[in-house]
Amino acid sequence: MYLCYMEKETGLFMLPVAIGEGNIERSLPKENIEIAKRLSYFIVENVRTARRCLKKMAPEIDISSLTFYELNEHTPTNEISGYLEPLRRGESMGLMSEAGCPGVADPGAAVVKIAQREGLKIIPLVGPSSILLSLMGSGLNGQLFTFNGYLPVDAHDREKRIRELEALSRKTGGTQIFIETPYRNSKMLESLLKALGGETLLCVAANITTVEEQIITRKVKEWRKLNIMLEKVPTIFLFNSGENS
Amino acid sequence: MYLCYMEKETGLFMLPVAIGEGNIERSLPKENIEIAKRLSYFIVENVRTARRCLKKMAPEIDISSLTFYELNEHTPTNEISGYLEPLRRGESMGLMSEAGCPGVADPGAAVVKIAQREGLKIIPLVGPSSILLSLMGSGLNGQLFTFNGYLPVDAHDREKRIRELEALSRKTGGTQIFIETPYRNSKMLESLLKALGGETLLCVAANITTVEEQIITRKVKEWRKLNIMLEKVPTIFLFNSGENS
Repeated sequence: MYLCYMEKETGLFMLPVAIGEGNIERSLPKENIEIAKRLSYFIVENVRTARRCLKKMAPEIDISSLTFYELNEHTPTNEISGYLEPLRRGESMGLMSEAGCPGVADPGAAVVKIAQREGLKIIPLVGPSSILLSLMGSGLNGQLFTFNGYLPVDAHDREKRIRELEALSRKTGGTQIFIETPYRNSKMLESLLKALGGETLLCVAANITTVEEQIITRKVKEWRKLNIMLEKVPTIFLFNSGENS
Repeated sequence: MYLCYMEKETGLFMLPVAIGEGNIERSLPKENIEIAKRLSYFIVENVRTARRCLKKMAPEIDISSLTFYELNEHTPTNEISGYLEPLRRGESMGLMSEAGCPGVADPGAAVVKIAQREGLKIIPLVGPSSILLSLMGSGLNGQLFTFNGYLPVDAHDREKRIRELEALSRKTGGTQIFIETPYRNSKMLESLLKALGGETLLCVAANITTVEEQIITRKVKEWRKLNIMLEKVPTIFLFNSGENS
């Protein structure tokens, strides 16, 4: 017989956040909401986003009664450990990212690492990951894949890196995944279409989990004919040069 | 204003399946269930698992009225395309894996690839991925990671591969992730403790999303002292030799 975690366990609950205008009922299991309602302490990438997300998850939550610790690129490294004090004294805590799953492509892993070192309980919850959803929808190899984060900003370096990743993909058959800040999407697509071979399968996945979601996989030579402009929206890029289409 | 996908869209819905004895309310957003209830055609890795999962998701579904196409390692490649006939004539379809997210570490990507080639709509839905949940809970680098599927079965080859992946992780700082069939877990752990350096961080993540879930990250030299036996349960292994603990 299954017992809901909140009834029996204390720990650091990793609470995913809906992406963009992604709807809660599409993005989060019901139990996440029940767990969030019982937490008083949160470590979050952005307090404003976290408050809004909690309000959307459960309008009855009294946000003003909650304690938030902000963990992002501005947080001094020596302050992070102190955030876990409530957990150390037996209170459950929530960890939330700006969007998607905490600990993946965000600063959240730093605090999970400390909790692991101290043997504290960590409970990752199910939620939307644009990386994983893009991979699923791409049809590209999901048995071997690498998430690379951001590629270099300089066009020359970026194209060099794309060619390196393409050579690796051709050799191993693995899928290469990466992200870009939305305002550089068009430059990124330009680099990809310039640097990649025509037979390589390229997937562009935009607005994941929203009503505008688009996940399109085509050969690079087909993308070149399309003459498209990518909008300034959250986008994941994936390619594979090691599989036949 | 958000419109539920099922009201407006036709496509190949990628429906995740709860892992092991994982509870539906912890594993799946409510909308997945609403979508599943409206589908008549399913491409599934295992018909028995798929029926049981649908019954658990929505007991009111009349399973006998549904059409299932089985896509697994026994499916002749030239039959896969035919499974998409309902989708081609405008019916929505569901794609389900044995457990977790279809298209990742399962045979489902083959049919998504065909759907992509034909420009058919694909809609991946949120659900449990033991790979992603393990990574979240491990505290290891989530900005750069590779999922490697299975490592070689032969002990010598496996240890060689582990050392290669460790060298790569030391160089790039990326996290290496892989799986093993449950009855080989102990052998895998043995190989890891033998082949990896003492300072490498190793995470063993077992029974993800169930009440017996355990996600533990320690240095290899600490694991060596523990003298543990891994049970025959679904387990993900992750390590990183490129970050300080």
